[in-house]
Parts: sequence; structure tokens; C-alpha cells
Amino acid sequence: MSKKINIGLFGFGVVGQGLYDIIKTKNLNLEIVRFVIKNPNKKRSLPQELFSTDKNSILQNPEINTVVELINDTEAAFEIVSAALKAGKNVVSASKKMIALHLSELIDLQHQYGTSLLYEGAVCGSIPIIRNLEEYYDNELLHSIYGIFNGSSNYILSKGFNDGLDYPTALKQAQELGFAETDPTMDVGGFDAKFKLVIAAYHAYGIVVKPEEVFNLGIENLSVQDIQYAKEKELKIKLVPYAKKLNNQQVALYVLPRFIDKKELLYNVDYEYNGVIVQAAFADQQFFFGKGAGGHPTGSAVLSDITALRYDYHYEYKKAAATDGLQFTNDIELDIYMRYHNEDLIKELNFEHVAERFYSDRFKFITGTIKLKNLIVNQHRISQNKAFIAVNNPRVSSR
Amino acid sequence: MSKKINIGLFGFGVVGQGLYDIIKTKNLNLEIVRFVIKNPNKKRSLPQELFSTDKNSILQNPEINTVVELINDTEAAFEIVSAALKAGKNVVSASKKMIALHLSELIDLQHQYGTSLLYEGAVCGSIPIIRNLEEYYDNELLHSIYGIFNGSSNYILSKGFNDGLDYPTALKQAQELGFAETDPTMDVGGFDAKFKLVIAAYHAYGIVVKPEEVFNLGIENLSVQDIQYAKEKELKIKLVPYAKKLNNQQVALYVLPRFIDKKELLYNVDYEYNGVIVQAAFADQQFFFGKGAGGHPTGSAVLSDITALRYDYHYEYKKAAATDGLQFTNDIELDIYMRYHNEDLIKELNFEHVAERFYSDRFKFITGTIKLKNLIVNQHRISQNKAFIAVNNPRVSSR
Repeated sequence: MSKKINIGLFGFGVVGQGLYDIIKTKNLNLEIVRFVIKNPNKKRSLPQELFSTDKNSILQNPEINTVVELINDTEAAFEIVSAALKAGKNVVSASKKMIALHLSELIDLQHQYGTSLLYEGAVCGSIPIIRNLEEYYDNELLHSIYGIFNGSSNYILSKGFNDGLDYPTALKQAQELGFAETDPTMDVGGFDAKFKLVIAAYHAYGIVVKPEEVFNLGIENLSVQDIQYAKEKELKIKLVPYAKKLNNQQVALYVLPRFIDKKELLYNVDYEYNGVIVQAAFADQQFFFGKGAGGHPTGSAVLSDITALRYDYHYEYKKAAATDGLQFTNDIELDIYMRYHNEDLIKELNFEHVAERFYSDRFKFITGTIKLKNLIVNQHRISQNKAFIAVNNPRVSSR
Repeated sequence: MSKKINIGLFGFGVVGQGLYDIIKTKNLNLEIVRFVIKNPNKKRSLPQELFSTDKNSILQNPEINTVVELINDTEAAFEIVSAALKAGKNVVSASKKMIALHLSELIDLQHQYGTSLLYEGAVCGSIPIIRNLEEYYDNELLHSIYGIFNGSSNYILSKGFNDGLDYPTALKQAQELGFAETDPTMDVGGFDAKFKLVIAAYHAYGIVVKPEEVFNLGIENLSVQDIQYAKEKELKIKLVPYAKKLNNQQVALYVLPRFIDKKELLYNVDYEYNGVIVQAAFADQQFFFGKGAGGHPTGSAVLSDITALRYDYHYEYKKAAATDGLQFTNDIELDIYMRYHNEDLIKELNFEHVAERFYSDRFKFITGTIKLKNLIVNQHRISQNKAFIAVNNPRVSSR
């Protein structure tokens, strides 16, 4: 009925192993024919002869029709995926950074070589958000897409809010449990969430945005005062990537900590879970929730993509084709809370409107409206000042 | 790029009007060529010449390639959908009862005539649960699917729990707002939720189950005592259709009120919203949330189906093809709470195990384990007794 899928798998880490575990349990008419790994000396759970360090043992193997790329090295991943698409093989990848950085090249390669690249596992693990944006909300007027896209930072924030840990202790615990890397910058700095946002925005709005154009500020400077401030107002703080259509011409994207009210669906998305809100004109508010990372949840998304290739599924990228000249913009105002140390920063930031100021012997904060561009220009100063910023309100006004 | 869709629309009520509103806003290369309605004298928002009462003005119109069926009459709907599929036209329908009752005939017709029937709008309005069960969780080991599938009964329950209204007042308010029918039995009795459950179970497990085989008990007998009992334990009561794979042979389905803990995702699914939980082996817990009914949300789901037909999308019904001989069963035990009036009922019901009994001058209740089959046999007695039952625990044990 459907063609047999012979897989060449690059990378046999947590997700690779997870994928293998799932495939094992079912009779799916698919087989991992070859594993290419970096370290030949690492002990493996499978017979040694399945493994190779030679990428051509997959790329030049005519028996293999499907390449699954699950490695950590961004540039090596791009090289492998490009070569596979050019060699007429379909590809499934979970490398969010690689895809976000090379999106337009990857789309071109698919068109040029008639091959398909799927990457549901790259965005919010088990949550089928790309497929749904691509297929199901195809005709919708999408007002906004936002949510919790990064499990590591969410784990740390949940430890702070639910279990009373301060940031350094929560980070350490997350690292010990394998939820955060030794260098956690990608996660806690909002970079990982940004890569996912850029990919989602393409499927939602058909706009290609370079990750470096999108502002991201993370949770590194979160203090007990910020947690206390939020708790007194019955709010939580979450790290939220946000895409919003401002009007018929412009879409804004950014990643910032955000206060979340207990009536919001994201309020209960805690620890390693992810949640995505899609606000649409007709379907109204839609919410997707699931595990955002881990071998089995991500492996499950990767397998859904693999089996979709059986039916020659490929992203149509219909939004981009139909794009009504939508443009990415940073020209918005945000209503923020900022806890800070040095008074000079306030002057530099040049708030449009100051709503509140608070001084104590323990901490100082300001709330008010600011141009996103002023945050971008002063990102280094904010960071040096160890200031913590959170978006105060769902309101985003266009200039 | 894609073929033009010429639609013949049966029914121009709330969903039909919603669909029309959405189509208007976009340039989708599709057109509603003809509207067939029952009442020619009703005032319409569109030119009179578009309307007809003659079904053949759609069914025998060679220009029309897609039939959208949005009428209230179950048997007439089946007749129209069958005739359209036989006439080589693809069909989109939102008639849950009709689809649940005629599922296997409708599948056969699609195979026989090579036409496609899609019905995302029939199950949980705007939530793309059928498409995701069909496509995305194709390879998953699905442990269970359950949730809040009926907005009317959920609205009444939310009014009870959040706003302190008693059942008759909440029902009356729901009726006034158009959330419940004059005869609310389909909604508050759990029939509507059951039809949706039967459809979802087919896409999840590949089993065709006749609705009359599935037990449903509603919220008609909900009293202030039940609400108080739940509130004291920080629980809510929701009407929950439940599908659970018991083992490699059996799937249980039923619709019953259920206590929901505040830690559960369904706890915050209130008023007219729906929520679906998919518990899977690898993706783990997944949650979908959105508006369960209404012209625009359901119209949006119907439009997603219409545009999918552009690419000749049809349900593969892969689960049924791959079915490992899964069978529907009612042979399970449930842990329930029952508030009742007449002591005789307790004897008839023959609890397997009684955990608690409570007597007061205001009400009596019992908690314990009971065979579902005993509830089925005694359904009439339960109803006569005006007893209220809610499932106490997520635990479902197989015999």
C-alpha cells in the first residue's frame, strides 16, 4: 500500500534513541538501515556494524530514501540536510537553529530537487504546531501565535514560582537533571525559543525573518524580588516568544519574559511542558499543550514526519505563496516592568510613558511603555546593568 | 495551482452563515454556487436567487464539485451526503449524529465511489482533533482520549461551579443565550458528546462502535449538594466522554460526569469551550483547547476541510486498516460517587466494593467500585431515582 521507508539516521543521542525505541514497538514498514555518528568509540545499545562515521554511507546509499538528521552541530547539520535533499532523499530534521538560520535556502532546495524536508520535532517537541499552522489554519486570519517554547527555561521558572528556588539553584538543578546544558545561554537567553518562533512565523505568516533581526531577552537576571513582585499580583513569569500581526502589512516578533495571569492558559504550563496559543479570527483562541522536549516526545514528532513521507507529504508553504506583502517589523511599543540597578539606564532607554516607579533599599523598578527599538539598541546596557524585564500587558500597540 | 472549489451548501443556519462570513474575507478560489434550504420564506442575508429548496439543484449540478452539509435533520443529512458521494462529489459535513450512526456505510461509500468525506467540524468545533488523530498520532500507542466535547453542558456546569447557579437556572440561561436547545436532552444527557466520542474513537483506534452500545449518563440530576461535595474537595464536575485502550484487545468507551482536580488541564476548560486530552505512549500527554461550537469556530473547521479537498485530501482510515483486532467492550469497573434517594437502588446496582456511605437529612451518597454493565442494566432505575453519578477517579480497571 505504501512504500517502505529505509532510513539513514545521523546522530544517536537522546532523540535518536527515543525514535529507535518507538519504531521498535510497531510494525511500520520502515527500518533504520544505517546510523552515522561522530564518536565511534562510544558504547552503543545496538550492534557495532550498524554504525559508521562516514556520512556518505548514508548520502550515497541508493537503498536509503529518507534521511533523519538529529545531530547537535548546526553547520554540519545544514551540510548533511542540503546534501541529502540534493541527492533526492527526503529529510526529517529536529535542528531548530539550523532550520531557522537557513530557512530560505532549505525551501529553495526542496523546490529545486523535488524533495521534502519536515521538521515538526524542531518546534515544541511533541506538539504538532507546524503541521497545524501549515494545514489546518491555512485560511485563518491569524492574529497572534505565542507560548512557552522552551522547556529548560520554563523548568527553571516553575522551580522559582512553585517551589521557591532562586535562579542559580533552579538552574543548577535543571542542569543536574539534564534539562539544561552546561552553557545554558541558548535556553535561558531565549535563543532556542527565538529559532522556534522564526520557524513558526514562516508557517503562520509566510515571512522569512533572520533570527538576528528578532529581539530576545532571557531570564538570566531574574531575582527573588521579581518573583515576589509577580506573586503579590497573583502572576507568574514565563519566557514567551510572541508573533503578532499588527495590521495588513506588518508582523512583529520578539522573545521576552512576560507576566501571565492565572486565568491565562499558559499559567499552568509548568516545568518541561510547552504550550502554544494560536489566536485566530474565526477559530478564536486555540491552545496546544504537550511535552516540549525529551527523547520520546520529540522522537514521536520525528516519527510522525517520517510516516507522513510515506504519502509524499511536503509542506506547501502556502502562506508564503499567498503572502500579501507582509513584512517583519520591530517598530512596536511594549508595556514593560523593569527591575534595575543603575539610574543611567532609565535615561538611555527613553520610556515613552512612565506608569510607576518604585525605590527601596532592596530593589528599584519602573513600569511603562517603551519602543522595542530602544530595547534593541540598549541590549548590552540592559545586560551589563543586570536589569530584569518582563512584558506587563498583552497589549502591543503599533506605531 | 489548485482546482477551483464550487460549493453546494445545504443549510444556512448559524454554521452556514459563519462559513459564508469567513469565505467572504479571503480570496480562496472557492465559491458557494448554490444554497439549498428547507424554508423558502425565511428572510436571508443574500440574494433570493441563490437559494433553492430543491436538493437536485446541487446534487445534479455538474458545476458543483463539493457539497457542504450543515443541516439539522439526521436522516435527511445522511440521504444528501450519500447521494453526493455517489454522484462523485466530495463532501464536508458537521452532522455528528449522522456520522456516528452511519460511520461504516459512509466509509464504504467513499471507497466505492472514490470520493472524500471530511467532518472536522462535527467533533469539538474549531479543535483539529480528527485530523491530528488521523495524521499526526498515526503511529502512536494511544492510551486514552477524553475531554470536554459538549459546550452546552459545560456552560451549565461552569455556571454552577463558577457563578453559583443551580442546574435549572443555569439551563434556562444557556437556553436564552442559544447555548442549549429547547429540548436539551442531546447535550445535557451526553448524547452529543457520545456521537463525537464514537467518531474520535474510530480515528484513534480504528473501531466502529454503534452509539447505542456506548453508555451515556448526563448532568440532568446535578444538585447543589453535588456541587458542594465537589467544591469542598477543590474539584469541579465535568461531563467527560472517555475512550481508553485497556490492553491489546479491548477499548472501553463511555460518557459520564467526572470529578476534575484543579491540577488537571480540563479544570480550566469552562463555559462554551472544549478541551481534548490525548494520552499517548511517546508523545505523552497532549492537550487541545478551543471553542467547541458556534458559527465562526465551526465554520472555520468546515473551511479547513473544504480547502483540504483542494489537494484531494481524504481520511486514510489507517488505524482501521491496521487494526490488530481491537474490540469495543463495556466490561470495565468504575470508581463512582452516587447521590441518590431510594435505598433500593443501591441493592440493584450491586457495587463491587463500597468505599464510603453518607447519610444526612438533606442527601445521601455512596462511593465505590461498580461494573459499568450494572450501570447500563439499571440506567432507567438511576434516572427514575434522580440519582447523580460522577466518576471519582481516573482509574479504570479492566476485568
